[in-house]
Amino acid sequence: MNTFGQIFRLTTFGESHGVAIGGVIDGCPSGLELDVEKVQKDLDRRKPGQSHITTQRKEGDKVEFLSGIFEGKTTGTPIGFIIRNKDQHSRDYNNLREIFRPSHADYTYIKKYGRRDHRGGGRSSARETIARVAAGAVAKQLLQNIGVNIQAYVSQVGEVEVKKSYLELDLGLTESNIVRCPDLETAEKMIARIEEAGHNHDTVGGVITCVATGAPAGLGEPVFNKLHADLGHAMLGINAVKGFEYGSGFAGTRLSGSEHNDVFVKDGETIRTKTNHSGGVQGGISNGEDIYFRVAFKPIATLLKEQHTVDSSSHEVTINPKGRHDPCVLPRAVPIVEAMAALVLADHFLMNSISKL
Amino acid sequence: MNTFGQIFRLTTFGESHGVAIGGVIDGCPSGLELDVEKVQKDLDRRKPGQSHITTQRKEGDKVEFLSGIFEGKTTGTPIGFIIRNKDQHSRDYNNLREIFRPSHADYTYIKKYGRRDHRGGGRSSARETIARVAAGAVAKQLLQNIGVNIQAYVSQVGEVEVKKSYLELDLGLTESNIVRCPDLETAEKMIARIEEAGHNHDTVGGVITCVATGAPAGLGEPVFNKLHADLGHAMLGINAVKGFEYGSGFAGTRLSGSEHNDVFVKDGETIRTKTNHSGGVQGGISNGEDIYFRVAFKPIATLLKEQHTVDSSSHEVTINPKGRHDPCVLPRAVPIVEAMAALVLADHFLMNSISKL
Amino acid sequence: MNTFGQIFRLTTFGESHGVAIGGVIDGCPSGLELDVEKVQKDLDRRKPGQSHITTQRKEGDKVEFLSGIFEGKTTGTPIGFIIRNKDQHSRDYNNLREIFRPSHADYTYIKKYGRRDHRGGGRSSARETIARVAAGAVAKQLLQNIGVNIQAYVSQVGEVEVKKSYLELDLGLTESNIVRCPDLETAEKMIARIEEAGHNHDTVGGVITCVATGAPAGLGEPVFNKLHADLGHAMLGINAVKGFEYGSGFAGTRLSGSEHNDVFVKDGETIRTKTNHSGGVQGGISNGEDIYFRVAFKPIATLLKEQHTVDSSSHEVTINPKGRHDPCVLPRAVPIVEAMAALVLADHFLMNSISKL
Amino acid sequence: MNTFGQIFRLTTFGESHGVAIGGVIDGCPSGLELDVEKVQKDLDRRKPGQSHITTQRKEGDKVEFLSGIFEGKTTGTPIGFIIRNKDQHSRDYNNLREIFRPSHADYTYIKKYGRRDHRGGGRSSARETIARVAAGAVAKQLLQNIGVNIQAYVSQVGEVEVKKSYLELDLGLTESNIVRCPDLETAEKMIARIEEAGHNHDTVGGVITCVATGAPAGLGEPVFNKLHADLGHAMLGINAVKGFEYGSGFAGTRLSGSEHNDVFVKDGETIRTKTNHSGGVQGGISNGEDIYFRVAFKPIATLLKEQHTVDSSSHEVTINPKGRHDPCVLPRAVPIVEAMAALVLADHFLMNSISKL
Repeated sequence: MNTFGQIFRLTTFGESHGVAIGGVIDGCPSGLELDVEKVQKDLDRRKPGQSHITTQRKEGDKVEFLSGIFEGKTTGTPIGFIIRNKDQHSRDYNNLREIFRPSHADYTYIKKYGRRDHRGGGRSSARETIARVAAGAVAKQLLQNIGVNIQAYVSQVGEVEVKKSYLELDLGLTESNIVRCPDLETAEKMIARIEEAGHNHDTVGGVITCVATGAPAGLGEPVFNKLHADLGHAMLGINAVKGFEYGSGFAGTRLSGSEHNDVFVKDGETIRTKTNHSGGVQGGISNGEDIYFRVAFKPIATLLKEQHTVDSSSHEVTINPKGRHDPCVLPRAVPIVEAMAALVLADHFLMNSISKL
Repeated sequence: MNTFGQIFRLTTFGESHGVAIGGVIDGCPSGLELDVEKVQKDLDRRKPGQSHITTQRKEGDKVEFLSGIFEGKTTGTPIGFIIRNKDQHSRDYNNLREIFRPSHADYTYIKKYGRRDHRGGGRSSARETIARVAAGAVAKQLLQNIGVNIQAYVSQVGEVEVKKSYLELDLGLTESNIVRCPDLETAEKMIARIEEAGHNHDTVGGVITCVATGAPAGLGEPVFNKLHADLGHAMLGINAVKGFEYGSGFAGTRLSGSEHNDVFVKDGETIRTKTNHSGGVQGGISNGEDIYFRVAFKPIATLLKEQHTVDSSSHEVTINPKGRHDPCVLPRAVPIVEAMAALVLADHFLMNSISKL
Repeated sequence: MNTFGQIFRLTTFGESHGVAIGGVIDGCPSGLELDVEKVQKDLDRRKPGQSHITTQRKEGDKVEFLSGIFEGKTTGTPIGFIIRNKDQHSRDYNNLREIFRPSHADYTYIKKYGRRDHRGGGRSSARETIARVAAGAVAKQLLQNIGVNIQAYVSQVGEVEVKKSYLELDLGLTESNIVRCPDLETAEKMIARIEEAGHNHDTVGGVITCVATGAPAGLGEPVFNKLHADLGHAMLGINAVKGFEYGSGFAGTRLSGSEHNDVFVKDGETIRTKTNHSGGVQGGISNGEDIYFRVAFKPIATLLKEQHTVDSSSHEVTINPKGRHDPCVLPRAVPIVEAMAALVLADHFLMNSISKL
Repeated sequence: MNTFGQIFRLTTFGESHGVAIGGVIDGCPSGLELDVEKVQKDLDRRKPGQSHITTQRKEGDKVEFLSGIFEGKTTGTPIGFIIRNKDQHSRDYNNLREIFRPSHADYTYIKKYGRRDHRGGGRSSARETIARVAAGAVAKQLLQNIGVNIQAYVSQVGEVEVKKSYLELDLGLTESNIVRCPDLETAEKMIARIEEAGHNHDTVGGVITCVATGAPAGLGEPVFNKLHADLGHAMLGINAVKGFEYGSGFAGTRLSGSEHNDVFVKDGETIRTKTNHSGGVQGGISNGEDIYFRVAFKPIATLLKEQHTVDSSSHEVTINPKGRHDPCVLPRAVPIVEAMAALVLADHFLMNSISKL
């Protein structure tokens, strides 16, 4: 299904080599001053060809808003938008028409739908996330109105990882380098690691960490739409994601309860927690502390080297893709993670506003 | 929100010390022969007091079906059911009425709703999962009809972990011991670890691994209801869960693409993958291989020892809970993980049946 | 599907001769002081056996709330409730097991589900509306908090109809007579008409008019959840309903635009309309005027006289039902209409509160 | 809210004078051969300027499909489409910027959203229904695959009405005249009635009757998504609609049960009903007979004559609109009624296919 959210809802459409990718945001309250430049800026952060460690494909990826905005503000009616596809070398894909590429969605789409648009991965292409980034950029602006800020960064590439907690980093440095890692020394190693993968015609995975500051207490709708469950749902829906953890995550399973519990303390007039193993969410509801989580990305499946596989006639074949592909998805996935986090938080902010009389 | 699923939908209600916990299953097709004993059996696997490493509270937890079943088969109408609460020592909780227990939902429920049923955690109690286990047991029977089997087991308690893959284990041994670990040697160490936590009036976390075999290719609804995203959503909604990964998960982020890709091969008439780093899901759709994933549980927040915290008047206070509590939630959480997995798979099975003409 | 509403959601279950009828209200804000007596009062207005013109079946229809209420107020968690079925003469229905009664749901349930609980109509029985009345009575209390009052009455029975507009009636007289018509002279004729139908072992239909006063402007969610469209959806879902019109309705189709338009005028500080052909809804959104609509009920299909029909083996048979049945559903349907209207308005009130920043 | 349907879901966007109107169809199964010409044909039937009794505005209304179709067939992925707006005389509307036109949505949109795109009615314009007609034309093609045919016609204009049942008419004649009435004699009177309204600078309402033939038994999802309730919901959501009735409708309330009941009879191998007061729906589920219903349209609110009203500063003002407007919406609304009926039936067809094992 292609609709995300309960109140602030995004519906998307579009294939990699179709006419356009687009979406409809429904449930955005009226009166939000919308800065279209900021939306475009996030699209540019996701765009291919932005640095030498991403694919060199050129795509304009200019968003066109079609409705729901009047004289610079949202009107409460649905916000439709499209991004036209360009630079389509669709014929390049003819030889892949009947091939099931390893660890791609070619085989499963055929099993499910009986047919597929094979060009560039069709609907299963990560190009589809353009619509999410555009909508997320709208959600971000809604959240900024209430003081919520979302910042993601690359915290691991292959075995190269940032050893520090996000609290020890200056997240303002994230955009200062092409890999989007605020730990500058590690950033250089990551870039080298990605270059190495590229040279080997191979790919490499990694982890993105995301932090939301300023979220009020109260966001989350137990028992099935706990805040972290909806965040996890959003992140796992991003292409190539294999895992999600928040707060202490998998590492927290090794602590004892007395080490793990976040003790409440008074901080002037408000109540805070001394530690934040909870990742800002307790019982599925935000408690006012920073919300933070980690998202695992597998190495991209498209390799520019020979691989064995099977085609739709069950013949064993060998493929050797050429073309322009990312050796590592992480740098371009940072705005996608932020966008999905923004969609979840905006939705929960609206839902929470009707929790009590 | 308290409804889960798109077609096969579960709506639950009930507080820990209210009159009853219950639920409504809507969208279950008619004609399913329902074995109520099997439902009760799963409830018994979740029940407190089942062994010396779980809480010694006694709760009958007998399910009563109220509708939707006629002469032993489902009728296509909603299946209502309740489990009455018993053994309520509600007054035991009077002293906690105004206390915000560390890493519990007391504080966040007050921030969200302005009031709460404080007795035994109210709605935020893991007792709520009874309704999920009952409904999941119905979903399991639907899945068995089509050859899908779901089996979860405890794969880590604190630092004690099963080193083998699920493929090297005899999952049939899971129920042979009270910790529900099919690796019998490790099971003993886990039990000792839980006993130790209990003696220390402390608690311990861990990991549950879950495997679904026999699922057909085609389950999953991109782009926002990819199969693994819905599984993750379901797992993260379980009390105390902090993380989810499927297939290669976080470890897979350290592999290169050429190591990680699952090569397609012919296996007689069908197409299989040589390895299964994909965890049975590619592009968000099942590919016919085993679906497997891991769920991280934090150590339970209720400690039978002194802790500092704050009350609703922002006074700093000390609590020292008594009573009957689990030192480790893992053994009783196994049927909960299975139940939520079953709800997701049953829902996706029905959705997939209308994917093509 | 058995869930109604977007934010204030009701899920119901239960068959006529099953264990219980019940429901879950999800999305009711916390802090609503709930008067359970008032809920029971509406159930009593729907109850069989309340007068000589309704069926003489005796059913206790006592509601039991199971969750979501603590110390007299809602907590924001789901409100579960059940009404146990009593006085079940299930064996009375054995002879109808394979019969398709004319204009009942026997045939269509078999075609859809392949099986059915035939006892007393099973899920298709109007007894199912008990859950709606209970939930609607909760919604009514939410609405009373914001000054919205809902009042329905019987405005037509067979050819006997109230000639006056609701504005010329004292709706406070509705409950003063057993047919629930505030026009006392017409009420007597209606009662006589129902008695006549009963004597003839026949049944009679009619119309219920419903008025909601005090609703603020702004309720309604274009384009697919216009306020009147959701009201119509709610009313058409009630057993035996064949039509819905609001404001000028079908009669308005014969007016010219210049006769039909509701001219805006100033009324002190507020803006009002001179006439109200719009029925309080313009462009699908309430405008602050009275919301009123009419609901058509067919004559009940159960006749205590001989009828020809067909059974499940396609044999032509003759039935001659005995028992205790209503000759006219209208008087008991008044609280059902009010309940469904209350569910719609409460839902829209909550949705509207997040329409603008 | 701007999404319609449960499985076959349409989400729409767009304002009358915005960049484009469009929509996304999600849940359409793959493998449907889509004839885009047929979609355009229905848009042309809705288009302004098609005859002298409709508005003379010229709008191209060419649909552009953006996704979800590959090599002429649907792929199971969402089908995005847009229709660009043209011929916008937006400045013509400047004088209406602060005016609340009688019986329009100007006032209620301001009350709800605090702001609005006033040009040509913005989102509240019936121009929005273009997206519904396009999507409905896709649904129609799905339904034709299973033998379901939907045909609407104008059965009343002002006081001029077709006296015959649809069974006595040749519905194939509907498109033979500009008012879309298959009773040719009445059609002429209707045209004259509309011309008269136009000459008077006034407008006139009426009724559209719609018939669906070939629908299998089993469509409808009690208790809240009965087939006729969803049809009513769909129809009442169309601009200017004031009422809905199916089968015997309001007239049926005057019959006794013995007159109204539809007796089942054998018809060869199948079971049929002798009469069809049920309108093809019993207990909310289709029974295999013709589904028919009637939809009441009010006279359009835009009059080309002087009217008194109030502006946003609460000043009383006089308006005297000029321009090109329909004196009667009925002829152009025929494809809209068909489209919404098709969306409902396609959705229910898919839902019903998973009702039983």
